[in-house]
Amino acid sequence: MPLIVQKYGGTSVGSIDRIKNVAERVVRTAGQGNKVVVVVSAMSGETDKLISLASQLSAAPSEREMDMLLSSGERVTSALTAMAIEALGQKARSFTGRQAGIITDRDHTKAKIERITGNRIRQALDEGYVVVLAGFQGITETEDVTTLGRGGSDLSAVAIASAVNADLCEIYTDVDGVYTTDPNIVPEARKLEKISYEEMLELASLGAKVLQTRSVEFAMKYRVPVVVRSSFNDNPGTLVVEEDKEMENVVVSGIAYDKNQAKMTVVNVPDKPGIAATLFKAIADANIVVDMIVQNISSDGKFADISFTVPKTDTRKALEVTEAIAKELGAERVDKRDDISKISVIGVGMRTHSGVASKMFQTLAANNINIAMISTSEIKVSCVIDQKYTELAARVLHEVFGLAEATH
Amino acid sequence: MPLIVQKYGGTSVGSIDRIKNVAERVVRTAGQGNKVVVVVSAMSGETDKLISLASQLSAAPSEREMDMLLSSGERVTSALTAMAIEALGQKARSFTGRQAGIITDRDHTKAKIERITGNRIRQALDEGYVVVLAGFQGITETEDVTTLGRGGSDLSAVAIASAVNADLCEIYTDVDGVYTTDPNIVPEARKLEKISYEEMLELASLGAKVLQTRSVEFAMKYRVPVVVRSSFNDNPGTLVVEEDKEMENVVVSGIAYDKNQAKMTVVNVPDKPGIAATLFKAIADANIVVDMIVQNISSDGKFADISFTVPKTDTRKALEVTEAIAKELGAERVDKRDDISKISVIGVGMRTHSGVASKMFQTLAANNINIAMISTSEIKVSCVIDQKYTELAARVLHEVFGLAEATH
Repeated sequence: MPLIVQKYGGTSVGSIDRIKNVAERVVRTAGQGNKVVVVVSAMSGETDKLISLASQLSAAPSEREMDMLLSSGERVTSALTAMAIEALGQKARSFTGRQAGIITDRDHTKAKIERITGNRIRQALDEGYVVVLAGFQGITETEDVTTLGRGGSDLSAVAIASAVNADLCEIYTDVDGVYTTDPNIVPEARKLEKISYEEMLELASLGAKVLQTRSVEFAMKYRVPVVVRSSFNDNPGTLVVEEDKEMENVVVSGIAYDKNQAKMTVVNVPDKPGIAATLFKAIADANIVVDMIVQNISSDGKFADISFTVPKTDTRKALEVTEAIAKELGAERVDKRDDISKISVIGVGMRTHSGVASKMFQTLAANNINIAMISTSEIKVSCVIDQKYTELAARVLHEVFGLAEATH
Repeated sequence: MPLIVQKYGGTSVGSIDRIKNVAERVVRTAGQGNKVVVVVSAMSGETDKLISLASQLSAAPSEREMDMLLSSGERVTSALTAMAIEALGQKARSFTGRQAGIITDRDHTKAKIERITGNRIRQALDEGYVVVLAGFQGITETEDVTTLGRGGSDLSAVAIASAVNADLCEIYTDVDGVYTTDPNIVPEARKLEKISYEEMLELASLGAKVLQTRSVEFAMKYRVPVVVRSSFNDNPGTLVVEEDKEMENVVVSGIAYDKNQAKMTVVNVPDKPGIAATLFKAIADANIVVDMIVQNISSDGKFADISFTVPKTDTRKALEVTEAIAKELGAERVDKRDDISKISVIGVGMRTHSGVASKMFQTLAANNINIAMISTSEIKVSCVIDQKYTELAARVLHEVFGLAEATH
């Protein structure tokens, strides 16, 4: 009997009526001869409400206590969803992260799953129950409650799908699937029928917030087939799977952008071995995640410019750290820009097709869009540009790579 | 180092400000050189909100799912309270029923505690933490979440106090302690300094709703000293302890009443061995709890009248069952009255002092209050009277037994 995992996000379970809709979809799926595991998030707004209560009590609440607090939202939804399913005549049973045996490390508020026992879930499925799992949560070996970070219910779904060997993991959200780019800025954007894990990873981490990055990594590692689709209609969604021959024929799958980065440049630092190491160790120690890094050497080989991007929210902290190190290294000055954005072209076909990067640069140039930084990987090319050109860049690149026409 | 358990009910943790007040009291208690275990209920209103959500989804939600749902309220309060305590500079850690090792039977929504391991709590106390325990909940041997029924957090507090060998279990509520009778109807009612477990049990089960009955039974069985006091002031409250010599000198400790009963009478049933057994087995099978039972035999010994009281909410069901059995037994008819109340005089001193019952009957008679049923135990005398005389009866009995004057 096929086994399907269905994950419903906060908006999909945001009210009693929506929970009833979810129950109907689950019962329909079970009625079609599938075993079903449902993974639910907290009702939309609940997590924020709890965070607000905590912030009224403490400026820096203990992360262990935050996990105890926040994990309650998913428990509530899991019990309510199980009741709604049973009200339709289908046996259902809710399980917490602990009851499902989702064992994590001790890194509270952003714990990593170490293993999943899943015995009770398998047993309940064998006994004919629909299993309703409280998402977003796990438990340490010493039985402390943990949560998996923002979007963690996606990870719960993919991880449990892997543990119970599910045939498919459906992620229900409020969009129809994964698009070639943001339909809000490019009306021609087209929903992809399928996409490879690696492309999805680049799209997700680059700002197309459909599926949590770690859940895609997990799905890729354990080859869990994932579908992203809407809980508000019956459209088929986008399949996220292993790369296949067909995909290789498509050079570019999507265009992503990210407006939430800032760029730092350390200007004219005397070039010595270890300057990059010194700088980026200090930034890492300050818990700042660096994305792109570019280093240029002056024509006489004596000085270097080092540019890098950081999350915009970390701009002030990054500037402080960078200025201190720049002084130490004898650099001329540090420049900062937060009116930038990163635009990326993604596609597994790039591995076998050349010319994507140059086509991208030419297109941007032809539209008078200056490129401040470039970074490339096997399946993507990213450029930092002036933020005001973001929408224009997305539109022209979407067009030049022919993304509006259906290919797969 | 003395160990104190403090339990705070829903109104005491009903808002962020009240949780802060609780935290201050806890930190003060810890600062006085005590180890402290705090037991908290759900914030007032939360449990009802969750019940309402469930009722919108299912007419008869599974009790297992109800427990999963309802137990979340106490988890939230336990985490918030731990944060509030830590914000005042005192180490604190929250624990669920499971983490505290509160093992119950499988009787969902009204589970009974079977044992408490309490290892993590003892360890946390030894490490200098204030322990904040989510009340009202436990876990079965097979790790399903259970709840302990209405008022279950009182039971959590007394049980954990017993498990960790606490020196005192303080129950914080919105009243100052246990009164000689309801101060709302007898302004002269006096707060008792101390009271025996048995008296408290009679008072609580008879309608003086200060402390959950099962928690008093548990405290009596394991000799846990309990104090009932207000979380809104520093008044000393009422100590609930083992009977002592001083108490025996006080003949009557309090007057309780209960307006929530109905009286059934099976009239003229042919007297045969086993009629009472047949009747009360049928009533028990219908899950109706019978309180008082009186049986009279007619002067010729051929017929009997059997009267008994049941909770008013069960009147209709009780009447149906009783009428069916009455017919079977050949009784003349069944009378029903729900305009009654039960008034009781309680005191451990009755064991050594005679005349309490006759003084009660005389006092009621002198005030033209008719007695419909009488039932007595070692430490109480209860009479069923017309409900309209409840307040009058409480006042005159309170006066005649001299309860307004301080004695202990």
